[in-house]
Amino acid sequence: MPSLREECGVLGIYRNKKGPLAMDSYLGLCALQHRGQESCGIAVNEDGLFRFHLDAGLVSEVMNPRILEDLGQGQIAVGHVRYGTDDTRGRINMQPLVINHRKGRLALANNGALTNYSSLRDDFEEKGMIFHTTGDAEVISCAITRERLTAGSTEEALERAMGSLDGSYALVMMTPRKLIAARGPRAFRPLCYGKLPEGGFVVASESCALPVLGAEFVRDIRPGEIVVFNDTGARSITTHCGSKPRSACMFEYIYFARPDSVLDGVSVHEARARAGEILAREHPVQADIVVGGPDSGIDGAVGYARASGIPYGPGFIKNRYIARTFINPENRDRGTAVKIKLNPVSAVVSGKRVVLVDDSIVRGTTSKNIVRLLREAGALEVHMRITSPPFLYPCYYGTDIKASDKLIARQHSIKEIQEIIGADSLHYLSHSAVRTIAAPIPPKELCIACFNGQYPCDIPNDALRDRYAKRLIRVGELQ
Amino acid sequence: MPSLREECGVLGIYRNKKGPLAMDSYLGLCALQHRGQESCGIAVNEDGLFRFHLDAGLVSEVMNPRILEDLGQGQIAVGHVRYGTDDTRGRINMQPLVINHRKGRLALANNGALTNYSSLRDDFEEKGMIFHTTGDAEVISCAITRERLTAGSTEEALERAMGSLDGSYALVMMTPRKLIAARGPRAFRPLCYGKLPEGGFVVASESCALPVLGAEFVRDIRPGEIVVFNDTGARSITTHCGSKPRSACMFEYIYFARPDSVLDGVSVHEARARAGEILAREHPVQADIVVGGPDSGIDGAVGYARASGIPYGPGFIKNRYIARTFINPENRDRGTAVKIKLNPVSAVVSGKRVVLVDDSIVRGTTSKNIVRLLREAGALEVHMRITSPPFLYPCYYGTDIKASDKLIARQHSIKEIQEIIGADSLHYLSHSAVRTIAAPIPPKELCIACFNGQYPCDIPNDALRDRYAKRLIRVGELQ
Amino acid sequence: MPSLREECGVLGIYRNKKGPLAMDSYLGLCALQHRGQESCGIAVNEDGLFRFHLDAGLVSEVMNPRILEDLGQGQIAVGHVRYGTDDTRGRINMQPLVINHRKGRLALANNGALTNYSSLRDDFEEKGMIFHTTGDAEVISCAITRERLTAGSTEEALERAMGSLDGSYALVMMTPRKLIAARGPRAFRPLCYGKLPEGGFVVASESCALPVLGAEFVRDIRPGEIVVFNDTGARSITTHCGSKPRSACMFEYIYFARPDSVLDGVSVHEARARAGEILAREHPVQADIVVGGPDSGIDGAVGYARASGIPYGPGFIKNRYIARTFINPENRDRGTAVKIKLNPVSAVVSGKRVVLVDDSIVRGTTSKNIVRLLREAGALEVHMRITSPPFLYPCYYGTDIKASDKLIARQHSIKEIQEIIGADSLHYLSHSAVRTIAAPIPPKELCIACFNGQYPCDIPNDALRDRYAKRLIRVGELQ
Amino acid sequence: MPSLREECGVLGIYRNKKGPLAMDSYLGLCALQHRGQESCGIAVNEDGLFRFHLDAGLVSEVMNPRILEDLGQGQIAVGHVRYGTDDTRGRINMQPLVINHRKGRLALANNGALTNYSSLRDDFEEKGMIFHTTGDAEVISCAITRERLTAGSTEEALERAMGSLDGSYALVMMTPRKLIAARGPRAFRPLCYGKLPEGGFVVASESCALPVLGAEFVRDIRPGEIVVFNDTGARSITTHCGSKPRSACMFEYIYFARPDSVLDGVSVHEARARAGEILAREHPVQADIVVGGPDSGIDGAVGYARASGIPYGPGFIKNRYIARTFINPENRDRGTAVKIKLNPVSAVVSGKRVVLVDDSIVRGTTSKNIVRLLREAGALEVHMRITSPPFLYPCYYGTDIKASDKLIARQHSIKEIQEIIGADSLHYLSHSAVRTIAAPIPPKELCIACFNGQYPCDIPNDALRDRYAKRLIRVGELQ
Repeated sequence: MPSLREECGVLGIYRNKKGPLAMDSYLGLCALQHRGQESCGIAVNEDGLFRFHLDAGLVSEVMNPRILEDLGQGQIAVGHVRYGTDDTRGRINMQPLVINHRKGRLALANNGALTNYSSLRDDFEEKGMIFHTTGDAEVISCAITRERLTAGSTEEALERAMGSLDGSYALVMMTPRKLIAARGPRAFRPLCYGKLPEGGFVVASESCALPVLGAEFVRDIRPGEIVVFNDTGARSITTHCGSKPRSACMFEYIYFARPDSVLDGVSVHEARARAGEILAREHPVQADIVVGGPDSGIDGAVGYARASGIPYGPGFIKNRYIARTFINPENRDRGTAVKIKLNPVSAVVSGKRVVLVDDSIVRGTTSKNIVRLLREAGALEVHMRITSPPFLYPCYYGTDIKASDKLIARQHSIKEIQEIIGADSLHYLSHSAVRTIAAPIPPKELCIACFNGQYPCDIPNDALRDRYAKRLIRVGELQ
Repeated sequence: MPSLREECGVLGIYRNKKGPLAMDSYLGLCALQHRGQESCGIAVNEDGLFRFHLDAGLVSEVMNPRILEDLGQGQIAVGHVRYGTDDTRGRINMQPLVINHRKGRLALANNGALTNYSSLRDDFEEKGMIFHTTGDAEVISCAITRERLTAGSTEEALERAMGSLDGSYALVMMTPRKLIAARGPRAFRPLCYGKLPEGGFVVASESCALPVLGAEFVRDIRPGEIVVFNDTGARSITTHCGSKPRSACMFEYIYFARPDSVLDGVSVHEARARAGEILAREHPVQADIVVGGPDSGIDGAVGYARASGIPYGPGFIKNRYIARTFINPENRDRGTAVKIKLNPVSAVVSGKRVVLVDDSIVRGTTSKNIVRLLREAGALEVHMRITSPPFLYPCYYGTDIKASDKLIARQHSIKEIQEIIGADSLHYLSHSAVRTIAAPIPPKELCIACFNGQYPCDIPNDALRDRYAKRLIRVGELQ
Repeated sequence: MPSLREECGVLGIYRNKKGPLAMDSYLGLCALQHRGQESCGIAVNEDGLFRFHLDAGLVSEVMNPRILEDLGQGQIAVGHVRYGTDDTRGRINMQPLVINHRKGRLALANNGALTNYSSLRDDFEEKGMIFHTTGDAEVISCAITRERLTAGSTEEALERAMGSLDGSYALVMMTPRKLIAARGPRAFRPLCYGKLPEGGFVVASESCALPVLGAEFVRDIRPGEIVVFNDTGARSITTHCGSKPRSACMFEYIYFARPDSVLDGVSVHEARARAGEILAREHPVQADIVVGGPDSGIDGAVGYARASGIPYGPGFIKNRYIARTFINPENRDRGTAVKIKLNPVSAVVSGKRVVLVDDSIVRGTTSKNIVRLLREAGALEVHMRITSPPFLYPCYYGTDIKASDKLIARQHSIKEIQEIIGADSLHYLSHSAVRTIAAPIPPKELCIACFNGQYPCDIPNDALRDRYAKRLIRVGELQ
Repeated sequence: MPSLREECGVLGIYRNKKGPLAMDSYLGLCALQHRGQESCGIAVNEDGLFRFHLDAGLVSEVMNPRILEDLGQGQIAVGHVRYGTDDTRGRINMQPLVINHRKGRLALANNGALTNYSSLRDDFEEKGMIFHTTGDAEVISCAITRERLTAGSTEEALERAMGSLDGSYALVMMTPRKLIAARGPRAFRPLCYGKLPEGGFVVASESCALPVLGAEFVRDIRPGEIVVFNDTGARSITTHCGSKPRSACMFEYIYFARPDSVLDGVSVHEARARAGEILAREHPVQADIVVGGPDSGIDGAVGYARASGIPYGPGFIKNRYIARTFINPENRDRGTAVKIKLNPVSAVVSGKRVVLVDDSIVRGTTSKNIVRLLREAGALEVHMRITSPPFLYPCYYGTDIKASDKLIARQHSIKEIQEIIGADSLHYLSHSAVRTIAAPIPPKELCIACFNGQYPCDIPNDALRDRYAKRLIRVGELQ
């Protein structure tokens, strides 16, 4: 299900003494790579001097031994991986954003989407500010640094600035002497921190970035919380920016996050397996084998198999040597194009009634392809089961799904979708069920706006944002 | 289990009319990439003109749109992916080998290892031949082209030459007008062919290369058989080169081949799953979850789960964004280094008694690492089950395992290995069982020399071969 | 004489209708490449949308067909090549600077050095501005855009802003609808414009960038002048920013500019040849051949030969295939290192008394090397003649020569320098003569501060600027 | 005059003790780069182990610090730069050729063109030899190694083999213990050697490769001579391969070689300057300035100026930052395309009657362009003078000029050529004069077949050679 794209992953490291922070950041970002594959960056702070490098591409493409050496040793680092949403994509918005201001320097990495970006930027431009990017990070930096002219500390400035930010954000930033993490009051996007074995801390979008650094998970950053890391440890500041209720993004559990991550106390693998189990009870079927859509459907398939008693089988092989391909699918017939990266295991499905479990259907193209692959491999029946409700509404809180995208469930009934993708049956997880899979998070603290259209906070006027985004394009994207 | 490396994968395409054979070869080789990742090459025949490109690296790295365009359209193509075994590694032995001789041109790609390379080469050098490489393909080319001086056709020359070749080989070659495939009489290495929808044929080391070209599987090349493909179709020649019995490599089923391939009529997935099932009966254990070693242990794990009734769980996440990394594991503590590419899913294994199914243990390093990862993720017990017998003897038939390699089973008892890798129990598949998993291939037609030391044909004198290999090194390997 | 480095070259293009401006900018920047080889950038304006690309490296390295295509067609473009002076070097200050502000977008490219950078930036930071770079272009952009909040047009804002800028600058900038060029009142740095054959204009640091675009030279931008280019043609605005007198940089004629350029009405080739002629009269010598130091000494040598009657000979061959070399001269003996790029023509100098004409001696290393090369090639005597006075004072107006650099003429008498470089005689052009070689520019309108220490305007406090520059480093320089 | 291309440059180094030979080879090849820019290679011999690297591109592109390190330390090295002539171009014929044979290893680099390639190859193929390339080096290697089966040493085998080689060749080869140089009996191509300061020898196509290695010129290799370099010094073998008279290529002096080289005792600079002097006497003209065609016309122009008394001026600036450009001249008007790399200095030629001295006119395109550039820069008259006779006949001895090339002098009278290129007058050096410029080489020992069609030895049948060359193409040329 490749058409939904998370906006970003952030990383911050604070060490008590100088060390190879560029390499540590590299390792941590590699573990967050699934959250963004368009560009990445690392900034390292050595005694107040900020060295940084950003470019388009995967972490393993952008960074190399020489770059890491040039970034040097340091005490604090901030890293970032990103997609961009459609209107903020490209080199121009690479992060971390590194700036100078009256009171020092700031390197800032963010995951999320401000819903009042346009009005904030209008205000700042009225005051004479100039903007080098079209992204949220610069507006947030503006808000913080302007408050900093009068605030006694960066964290105080951040707290004040947070009062004016709407939408979703999960920030990691460094000043010459501190690492600061903050999560928006609604906590749409995950953010947690851990303790380094040799002293110091790691902040990351997902807990899966901690083990590679040998870090021990401490806890999630709380909604609206600021945590300041320095030599004296981790200090928490509870902000009161509107006392908004939590609205954790359900899609983090369903699709975005890595199965080995635990977000806000909930295992991603378990949430998915539970969705599969409920689905098996909500929509049982007579079948011989359960297979998962690659890769995010596997946990759900294992859950479905467990609850239904139908055996699980590894239905697909993914070609792991083709990260990117220059094959233009348009030049080959579509069925063939898919087979470059994905192949069904005939021995698993041939002559069988197959339950195909996947996480979601956005535009329907992928589902159609994998159903056909199964049939070509000899599946007698293909019963599709989706571990989430139909995806009906655009997301404004950090996901690259816009109203203008062709959401298949918006245009077709479930029956029609079943026909389009060629399945023998198709069923989705119910709204009531999806709210339970991230237990013990209370249902009302989960954002499922993409399923039910009930947006927890104001949504932006797309036209306004376009006004900014459609002006500057930094070319030179990596293929 | 990354320490066993297959030597090569070969591909040949014959079309009735000119087409984008470079692109087709690219697609086919991508599907065979798991058989060799050091170098690759494609030769395309357009009306008798041979255009070719070879370089170190993955297919997706070596080939690019411009190269494919330069290779042009054609009727016949030969492609190759390779590791090298230790003594024939490197750019110098890249294939296909493309040469000119008295009767025309030849492009040849081979998978296997001649056991009488040294004596053949000595003979040819005595006759004044010069050698540009240290690989089997050149010696085979010599044998064929010298016979060709008097033989009436290339296939006749090949048939004669096969009489002098010992060891393993599976060849695809093209002349200006024909595509020819041949498999050594013992058929150690797989080779099959399929029919293209628009006319023509594809020959490949594994059947998994066929679907991406839309080809329909026809059959495996038989031991000692030559098949000639041209405008009149596929013509089979049964050679009588020694009437040696078949010795199909068991490790193709256990580890090398892709699970969706069917070799000599046996599904790789099924052979592995069957091994897991037998293992569950031979070595049962009280446990809560079965997980597979990434990636080749998954099919075995599913089989073990099915036969034991213990649920299967996706125990590991592999970072699919890191194909190669420049992290030197020596610079980091070993446990951390592993976590860059591989992470356990704590939610699957924490607090549980885990059965860890893997395909083999060669040096023990990988097994030790994944056992530790499971324990760190909270596994209460780790019971390791190996879907093959202990690996005790070097392979001389096309696998990169030499006598000098530190085979752990050669130096330690199973009990000691269990302690070294830190498992709570360790059991291997029995010799009698392993011979049954590739049924209906009769046990005596399988080579399991690596398990029992009974080599089906003479093994070479390593020192003799070294005499050649240690003289020329073409530098410039891709990292 | 490679140790003096010009800071930048700028380019602007305005077309009446859309065209391949990225390619045109590429061609123009290649002709200005001698003015800066560290980084370069191009911004193209298509109907108000600014696309841009910047990176470290030569124009021919940074730009490629795909980038140029991505930059697209447009009506207006701005380009830049740069060294950085020591404290503003690196990726962080790549230009053109492209920003958004209240009244639109701005792409700005500058050549020069503000002497009041620190106080301007302090002021802006006090007002809450944040800075992404440590370069002049951003401070100038700030000054312009803040004035633009109240000014009726960008040119009016620029005029106001120019009132606050001290030091040297030669600007090209584009707004959504206009191309604007401006030259500081002292006109240290050159700037001219020409007319495109098909309508439209080109602005460039040097006239040598015009022919490749087929443009006809119109005139130099006047000191303190703003020229606005749009559909109605070129409109001149004479600013009154302090009514400072012109101080054209003499070193543009002596070393920086290309011989085929004409700056402020004076041919660079002619100024150099004239310097050689005067030198022949001021410091004659009995000799057999006149050779020029490569490459900027050749015009002077031809002048010296003409005035002295001693024949001119091509004394050196420069290896034109080595743009950059990874040979570390420290690893080889120095004499050898020089010979990689430069070789004397023995047949020209062997057995002869040689006059070696060069443009300047900064640290003495190069001169010492070329004198030795001539002697090794058989020169009997080497008489060095320099087409400028001794270089004694640092430059604060856009050249990378700082007080801390080891200016040989500051530490040694001419006699001592002669001994250090191993010449048989050494003479410099006199102060009075150097002022005449750029005639008809009046001597008092030339800056020769590097020779006589009489700075035409206030010089900056280095420590203040360092405060900013030493904080942010964007790594990843091209080797 | 870019359309004539030399085939190759060769380099060999012998050291008494192990040293950084890869780096030394790199330096030496950079100095020979003008002799071939399509591909290059280095082979280093360390205690009998041959490490080598070859690829398409300039030496500075193909080699890098890592490659040089991989090539390691050694006692003997062989290097090569090449164009290919039309029918042997491309990666397939990259040199040095490195092979294994019965008696050891051989790395061979050659400059020249065998005229009996086809018959030699036919013979070898009849004997069963296979060929990996379409180049002379492989046929020569065959000849040597076959003789070596019975000869007592490689040099003896080489001597015997030389008896069968016709045409031009200048060889450097290494065996496990020796460096061997040989020059064909007609000595078309240059080859000389020098002594390394720390012991050992350098062999090179031109003497200009010696200074960068600190080597002292010893002497040219004599026609038909073999020189063997080993620990006991340099040993000369005079072969008697047909007692053919010397036919030194006149075009080496006129165009190919670097001005600072001395070939067979004659300075290239002096030969060119002398040609210019004679031309001034043979074809005087009333004019104001003499300029040279870039770059090989400069020495002739200086000679013309000296003899005529008309001042010399630097008429053109060559953009040294554009080694290769991806600008397709076809996409721009031709006049503009030229200006990317070449610009006239208006101040030198404007308002003047200009003598333009160049080395040759092959197809006329370049001459036409530079005459036009001079006129656009204001030249009143342009009188072209060519320092060689009209180029009328193809070269079969190592130059890329074939009968099928459009030699302008073959199709047009001098008067017509003058009109085509737009000159006010055009004169060539006379046949009698050109034979004197390389004095003291006797006129009859110079090959001027390209001017007079008198080929000193049999010329090959192009069709026969094409039979081989048009069969194999190794794609992937560097752009």
